[in-house]
Amino acid sequence: MNPARELAIEDARRVLAAQPFSRLLGTRITAFADGKATLELDVRDDLRQQDGFVHGGVLAYAADNAITFAGGTALGPAVLTGGFTISYLRPAVGSVLRAEATVAHAGSRQAISTCELSVLDDTGAATLCAIAQGAVLARRG
Amino acid sequence: MNPARELAIEDARRVLAAQPFSRLLGTRITAFADGKATLELDVRDDLRQQDGFVHGGVLAYAADNAITFAGGTALGPAVLTGGFTISYLRPAVGSVLRAEATVAHAGSRQAISTCELSVLDDTGAATLCAIAQGAVLARRG
Amino acid sequence: MNPARELAIEDARRVLAAQPFSRLLGTRITAFADGKATLELDVRDDLRQQDGFVHGGVLAYAADNAITFAGGTALGPAVLTGGFTISYLRPAVGSVLRAEATVAHAGSRQAISTCELSVLDDTGAATLCAIAQGAVLARRG
Amino acid sequence: MNPARELAIEDARRVLAAQPFSRLLGTRITAFADGKATLELDVRDDLRQQDGFVHGGVLAYAADNAITFAGGTALGPAVLTGGFTISYLRPAVGSVLRAEATVAHAGSRQAISTCELSVLDDTGAATLCAIAQGAVLARRG
Repeated sequence: MNPARELAIEDARRVLAAQPFSRLLGTRITAFADGKATLELDVRDDLRQQDGFVHGGVLAYAADNAITFAGGTALGPAVLTGGFTISYLRPAVGSVLRAEATVAHAGSRQAISTCELSVLDDTGAATLCAIAQGAVLARRG
Repeated sequence: MNPARELAIEDARRVLAAQPFSRLLGTRITAFADGKATLELDVRDDLRQQDGFVHGGVLAYAADNAITFAGGTALGPAVLTGGFTISYLRPAVGSVLRAEATVAHAGSRQAISTCELSVLDDTGAATLCAIAQGAVLARRG
Repeated sequence: MNPARELAIEDARRVLAAQPFSRLLGTRITAFADGKATLELDVRDDLRQQDGFVHGGVLAYAADNAITFAGGTALGPAVLTGGFTISYLRPAVGSVLRAEATVAHAGSRQAISTCELSVLDDTGAATLCAIAQGAVLARRG
Repeated sequence: MNPARELAIEDARRVLAAQPFSRLLGTRITAFADGKATLELDVRDDLRQQDGFVHGGVLAYAADNAITFAGGTALGPAVLTGGFTISYLRPAVGSVLRAEATVAHAGSRQAISTCELSVLDDTGAATLCAIAQGAVLARRG
């Protein structure tokens, strides 16, 4: 595979900053290279559901976005998310949500990634709370 | 199946209003009965991604929540979302996002639902932009 | 979208007959046009699991294949299955397994389909036992 | 979690041998303990599709069954498969198909597993050709 150009984490930061929804949620990108992308966001009160856990929709957003960025490390900047699957394992309780996506395989047209969603407590200890997998497509140039 | 008690749309509205993340996004529930739940939200600028489309994470949030509410019509108020799959069909461009979930089958412990995600333009015309399916589990009483 | 050439049900029958695994299972194609494909197979004893139900793997095979054929009605003969999701609703008990796939959206490069898996009893009455959705990719020419 | 009784690989072998469809395909279980289950089957000609690759339905069957057995290591013998998602990475070419499933999390009622599908060539070298994740439910006693 031969992306039009390889993206650096600065490029990924610029894309993330250009997503109004990611700014609303306060997402930051902490790793972006070699088929891996990590997103993090602070768990604010307005990201919760009725029982005080992080809303499943926030986890789903983070999975979607991390899978897409991981695909971008392989396919270049012009990508579309095809879709993804998320399985919730435990209620998400903690102060930081982390989504770590890894490309399982990338061809020239599609990258399949897995993603682990964890919450970190105040000591930095991580608890896995959801897993996901999804497909990212290269846009026709 | 025999939910502890059947929920009315007023109950569903109360649950939705108790979700800070749904308040942040401005989600409203417009149908809730007989295995069907419909959620809608106005497409504000801060729900978009870098190309101006509704962010995939917003669609994923709406699918997750609509699938869960549809499950609640069958299983009663105490439910957990097991997970879901979303496939994106088209960029979501419009003024209202609508998520319509329908229970395909509900037993006493689990409900499987499908969900159609559409965007409505200013004339009210709907364009299907994603489809999803997912599982909701009854919480042990 | 503009498939290299449109496929007729005779073409689809030829492809199915060229799949040794579909011959092993005895699959036949009963509809193939306009974004829809229906596969059927007789429920023989060696397609069951330990409780006498049709094995989930047979349902998954049928979903995979029906989704791929439905994609072929839109994308032409050169397709690859990207993947799919199946949710089991009920134990599959009956004499015929039917998989009906419908394209939800097809572009030039990808078709997303849903699929209903039903078992028919000896009177022909159908019971929905699983639902699926999946992606089919056009192969580069 | 507290399975009615813990299963040994001999129990798993007995269940597999009681599945007519697994006997038809020639599946064997090579690992079964501690949240992990590995199934293997020899790639015979009648497991292929029209291009000579292992049929996607065979991979899907293997994923379904491995995910279910992995769930059984955590939940005990009385389990139901809720559903799963599979993403195909590469055409499956080789002499042995291996499905390795690992429980990501198990509660008392549900286990979520991931699964890697690989083909082995004649030297035993493995190539990853699909990944899956799925849910297994404990049957009510």
